Amino acid sequence: MRNPLLIILPLLILCSHAFAYDRLVEKQVFSMKSFKTESGKEIRDLKVGYETYGTLNERKDNVILIEHFFLGKGHAAGKYKPEDKSAGFWDAIIGSGKAIDTDKFFVIASDTLVNVNAKDPNTVTTGPASIDPATGRPYGMSFPIVTIRDFVNVQKALLDSLGITKLRAVMGPSSGSVQALTWAVTYPEAVERVIGVIPGDIDCNPFAIQALNLWMSPILMDPKWNGGDYYGREEPLDGIRLSIKQVIFSTYHYDWASAKFGRAWAAADKDPAQSFQNKYQIESWVDTLVGAFEKLYDANSILYHAKAVQLWSIKDELRKIKARVLLVPSKKDLLAFRDYSRNTERELKAAGVPVEVFELDGGTGHFDGIGSITQAEGAIRKFLERP
Amino acid sequence: MRNPLLIILPLLILCSHAFAYDRLVEKQVFSMKSFKTESGKEIRDLKVGYETYGTLNERKDNVILIEHFFLGKGHAAGKYKPEDKSAGFWDAIIGSGKAIDTDKFFVIASDTLVNVNAKDPNTVTTGPASIDPATGRPYGMSFPIVTIRDFVNVQKALLDSLGITKLRAVMGPSSGSVQALTWAVTYPEAVERVIGVIPGDIDCNPFAIQALNLWMSPILMDPKWNGGDYYGREEPLDGIRLSIKQVIFSTYHYDWASAKFGRAWAAADKDPAQSFQNKYQIESWVDTLVGAFEKLYDANSILYHAKAVQLWSIKDELRKIKARVLLVPSKKDLLAFRDYSRNTERELKAAGVPVEVFELDGGTGHFDGIGSITQAEGAIRKFLERP
Repeated sequence: MRNPLLIILPLLILCSHAFAYDRLVEKQVFSMKSFKTESGKEIRDLKVGYETYGTLNERKDNVILIEHFFLGKGHAAGKYKPEDKSAGFWDAIIGSGKAIDTDKFFVIASDTLVNVNAKDPNTVTTGPASIDPATGRPYGMSFPIVTIRDFVNVQKALLDSLGITKLRAVMGPSSGSVQALTWAVTYPEAVERVIGVIPGDIDCNPFAIQALNLWMSPILMDPKWNGGDYYGREEPLDGIRLSIKQVIFSTYHYDWASAKFGRAWAAADKDPAQSFQNKYQIESWVDTLVGAFEKLYDANSILYHAKAVQLWSIKDELRKIKARVLLVPSKKDLLAFRDYSRNTERELKAAGVPVEVFELDGGTGHFDGIGSITQAEGAIRKFLERP
Repeated sequence: MRNPLLIILPLLILCSHAFAYDRLVEKQVFSMKSFKTESGKEIRDLKVGYETYGTLNERKDNVILIEHFFLGKGHAAGKYKPEDKSAGFWDAIIGSGKAIDTDKFFVIASDTLVNVNAKDPNTVTTGPASIDPATGRPYGMSFPIVTIRDFVNVQKALLDSLGITKLRAVMGPSSGSVQALTWAVTYPEAVERVIGVIPGDIDCNPFAIQALNLWMSPILMDPKWNGGDYYGREEPLDGIRLSIKQVIFSTYHYDWASAKFGRAWAAADKDPAQSFQNKYQIESWVDTLVGAFEKLYDANSILYHAKAVQLWSIKDELRKIKARVLLVPSKKDLLAFRDYSRNTERELKAAGVPVEVFELDGGTGHFDGIGSITQAEGAIRKFLERP
């Protein structure tokens, strides 16, 4: 009889690729008694969640830090329970034998400060929805304004607590890329490689500032927002909904929309010409998508997170960078336009930073940074594994 | 002594170019006892405003019809009073000796049905803010849903009333271009030339449908909108404001924003890092622009106008067109993307329509169709004057 391993082994390999990150993952919590923000304010009893995939080696030099995007959280791979409908956002490239190979690397993904998913049971964050130890009530808008550098400083403290001083790479999509680049200027000795996926400009340029203003505005105009004091009563769900609708819209591309929806109606017997209630398919698709997540978001946290991105600029600090950088822009990006990442490439090179570029072309626009990320598998693997 | 005309004439010519359309213009009113919409509904006592520039010739064959854009009105050239701060939106190309030469052409610009400037004293329109003769109260959302073809049919009736059966050209920017193309499929015998400036796709494609949804959403979420029943009390100004903010944002380009604003603060002593009240310059610039016009707009009319554009498609009627077409897209357009106008060009050509293209490159994006329109002077003049 043939060795049964010869039959089972290929199946095992197949499974590890076909399914989500093959071990169940667990949210862990990192706490700090006190954290000082860039602006000098103190945040007491700070907590953020994090997850790890793979194994930390003895030299603790196989660490890859994953940063999440604006609407995201530090759930980058795997599932919490086998029956979870979806895995972490970059599960396609994080796992055994994948581009970010958990047989080699110890991967950490953390929830940011002021994470917008404050009401999601699997997100642990500190922000305006948290209880202010000084008052025993949610901070609301009394929470200090925080910056992307504050996000990074919290992550640095988390890594310190694990005895990790060196990052093989720090990487993330969209505003995750913003955090990754901020790591490289803030802790240049700690960062060997940066991968900026669907990266923006080298600062939050004025057009991006205004886009973020538009994401914030629906919340500010919702009377239920009430100056940020809504905890324990009806929350500004209309404002959240319109804010997220705008975010989602900006992450797609018109070609994708034309191919997927055309001018189809949401319901075949409900002609949009007959009533304002009758919608086109694209409208109801976006509404459904928003509806699936709207209850997880905290309105004030959207404001704080957007503010942090508006404030971001590392333009004058690029010469500090000691890492090499891989940029993975999306060709059809209508949020982080290709011109933005071209400028980032130009500015980094002008500062003497070695930059490589791999362009995604999945056709969905900004969302390519998640949905089409496997296109960059080869480029990411090579960039991570090359000494 | 030399003939004083030799001195005065050049001065006169200079003046006619340096100043706005050189005669004062007057809003006139076209009325219909009854109008039947495309959907079969009757609108009684319909009124729209219009203006004319130049002189109708005896054969009545020197007529150019100007269509306005979404936020615009039929004030395309000149001033109502010498002290008016600004002239009509295309004053730069309409006037004696200009690209649309009022020494040769009789130019008509009309306010559309459901014009959004319903509260502007210089706009005459019929829409949800009008009094329903059946009830003596404003229609609100009981006004029938109207289409771009309805806009055109009202204009056709206006031209009929003036004894005009032939248009040398019909032209307009943005949704004005949508109306112009609709003229060409609806009244092919009447239209010799179409000029579509910053034109969109050949229909309202799904991405544009969703953009319009986002312009409508802030109004629908404003509690003061109250199902459209707000006349005579506080109007949904927050909703209008955010709607217009989005429209304005989409008409500009990031390069323009970077050059004009950079990351400058709205006030030198108010660091945006210190407070949510402290803004960047681009944010306060947009807010000021919105503030200057917000009181003129009617919320329901924004909904009706947006709906009309969402419903628009002439894709299946292109073979009816007998006009030749000049498309004047803007290279950096982020609302009517250049790919949209390329598709329009392709579709028109496939239907046997002669199409020429002149590309604006003023750097402001969609707004080039107004602010940089003089770049197309030569192309427009040639297209209009060639037999």
